[in-house]
Amino acid sequence: MTASCRLRRTPFSQNVDNAGAKAFTVYNRMLLPTFFESIEADYHHLKSHVQLWDVSCQRQVEIRGPDASHLMQLLTPRNISSMMSGQCRYVPIVDDAGGMLNDPVALKLLDDLWWLSISDSDLLLWVKAIAIGFGLNVIVDEPDVSPLAVQGPTSKKLVERVFGSKINDIRFFGFDIFSFMGQDLIVSRSGYSKQGGFEIYLADYSLGTSLWSTLFEAGADLDVRAGCPNLIDRVEAGLLSYGGDMTSDNSPYECGLGKYCQPEEIKNCIGREALIKKSKEEPIRQIRPLEIAGSKVPICAEAWPLIKNHQRVGQVTAAVWSPDFETNVAIGMVDQEYWASGTELIVETPQDARSAIVRSSFWS
Amino acid sequence: MTASCRLRRTPFSQNVDNAGAKAFTVYNRMLLPTFFESIEADYHHLKSHVQLWDVSCQRQVEIRGPDASHLMQLLTPRNISSMMSGQCRYVPIVDDAGGMLNDPVALKLLDDLWWLSISDSDLLLWVKAIAIGFGLNVIVDEPDVSPLAVQGPTSKKLVERVFGSKINDIRFFGFDIFSFMGQDLIVSRSGYSKQGGFEIYLADYSLGTSLWSTLFEAGADLDVRAGCPNLIDRVEAGLLSYGGDMTSDNSPYECGLGKYCQPEEIKNCIGREALIKKSKEEPIRQIRPLEIAGSKVPICAEAWPLIKNHQRVGQVTAAVWSPDFETNVAIGMVDQEYWASGTELIVETPQDARSAIVRSSFWS
Repeated sequence: MTASCRLRRTPFSQNVDNAGAKAFTVYNRMLLPTFFESIEADYHHLKSHVQLWDVSCQRQVEIRGPDASHLMQLLTPRNISSMMSGQCRYVPIVDDAGGMLNDPVALKLLDDLWWLSISDSDLLLWVKAIAIGFGLNVIVDEPDVSPLAVQGPTSKKLVERVFGSKINDIRFFGFDIFSFMGQDLIVSRSGYSKQGGFEIYLADYSLGTSLWSTLFEAGADLDVRAGCPNLIDRVEAGLLSYGGDMTSDNSPYECGLGKYCQPEEIKNCIGREALIKKSKEEPIRQIRPLEIAGSKVPICAEAWPLIKNHQRVGQVTAAVWSPDFETNVAIGMVDQEYWASGTELIVETPQDARSAIVRSSFWS
Repeated sequence: MTASCRLRRTPFSQNVDNAGAKAFTVYNRMLLPTFFESIEADYHHLKSHVQLWDVSCQRQVEIRGPDASHLMQLLTPRNISSMMSGQCRYVPIVDDAGGMLNDPVALKLLDDLWWLSISDSDLLLWVKAIAIGFGLNVIVDEPDVSPLAVQGPTSKKLVERVFGSKINDIRFFGFDIFSFMGQDLIVSRSGYSKQGGFEIYLADYSLGTSLWSTLFEAGADLDVRAGCPNLIDRVEAGLLSYGGDMTSDNSPYECGLGKYCQPEEIKNCIGREALIKKSKEEPIRQIRPLEIAGSKVPICAEAWPLIKNHQRVGQVTAAVWSPDFETNVAIGMVDQEYWASGTELIVETPQDARSAIVRSSFWS
């Protein structure tokens, strides 16, 4: 990968380099490490210890002003009317046809102040333009906020040492405000793994190395290490990747996100009519967990066709060998006729064609 | 770089791999090669022969419908009222505060059909949301169109062999429709280099390899090679990179794009008031060419501070050794007091501090 100023470094980049990140991807035009020792070694460590993840690439879209809550509900088909300050929610964002544009976590700081912690698309442009088009009294921008995730079974112990016992009062998908070197920062109980953990929203770029070092020193006896979103863990858990497993061609129902959509309860949200129509029909295809037979699959760099009776009936967009489940775990989009649990399909990897069994649930 | 389905391959990816691309970047979530032999070897070849560039990452935003031309003028402060079908224009796109969101090339296909060939941000989301907010009668989407650039002094000879002598009728920043294997495709006289050339807009993914091979075979005696946007050529020419040299923090005037803005001539365009105000004042900083002393500079992966009298007075965002001009050529943003041609500043590279002289013009 060729470096350039277009691909942004983060407040933690120097620490990530020093910790020996071996590979990167680009996410929201920012560098995101993909593994340190190896994807498998990182996975074993994540499942038993605690890791620091530089997820600065989860950029924030800040909405502030008298119409902030009104705009938020216009943006998502999830009914967020009962959300209180200090709560986070996973909110699908769709276009007028009901196609997925992003799947951020919304943080309600105040009635007139929200953050959207985004996946990989420029949601800022969408939110800004909607605010302009609807003439809303809000200011929308990207603040200088970089999340640092602390993930793994001993993450609570580590975060408590640095931020105090008040951390125990934060519920899952809740957050509170803490102080670090004289600066306020938000700590939420959330993260892109199924091992539990927290996300620290650093709002002062210059404190990146201090925050990183403080957590590392406090967790020395916990074997804290640098880590990053782990492919094996996320596929086992069925955590979707926007732009890979789902795109604007997919409705939230196709993505299995129907439980986060209540368009009929909302007076006015973008995509409302399209989603109400879709909610009354079964989707024609949907995200499914799949188990792929045989030895370790290669990296899934392009959608792999799923075949039944010589016809394409879906595709796999993420697949990897799971050491703990001793099989290849995969995420795919499967046509309605073939998505029943136990259905055997053929997946065409670049190396070979293999058996792929649709499962009823993800692995963890 | 770790591959994933989130980073899209292109209709020409297999050809690019076969041609021996040695490094990539990610642009609009697509792979874009950065060099084949080396940046310097590619540069020498580009300046004397002809290259094929997979610039599929210049995605198209298609606007069609009765309000298409109305929406286009709403989107840009450039007066495009006299544009005719078959013409392209470089059009800054700004937000309501006049900050740059993208700097695409607009192609007017018909009064009710436009393409925006974008730089590295999700302009699709902006355009879609503006259309919804203003209630315009248009359909906005990203068609399956992948540009292949043919660049270099003998590009005309090569393109003529494949598409016929009608290619000679296309003026600079004009385009016409040609046929390839039974499919219509647009060929424009444009491209992200100063060596001249064309861009072929392939609208049928499955024809990628055929188009690539046909051009390669037709240009065998011209020493046609695979290439890509070349860092040395683009800095010498002062071709800006959105997200690197300029961001939404910059007005078009700061980017030296004032000549493409006529907000006072336009009844209603986004950012009109902000830009009219800015157009009456001199910008407080502006893009400038700079010559950096000493031997080859390292890669500019993070903005390098420009210093005068111990104060930061700007930054360099692209810099590279130019073999032809035998100096380090650079693009920077310099504060008004210090941007006069001949001003000597200090640039802080990660290796050392060096002299940087502001120039009056780019090199080619």
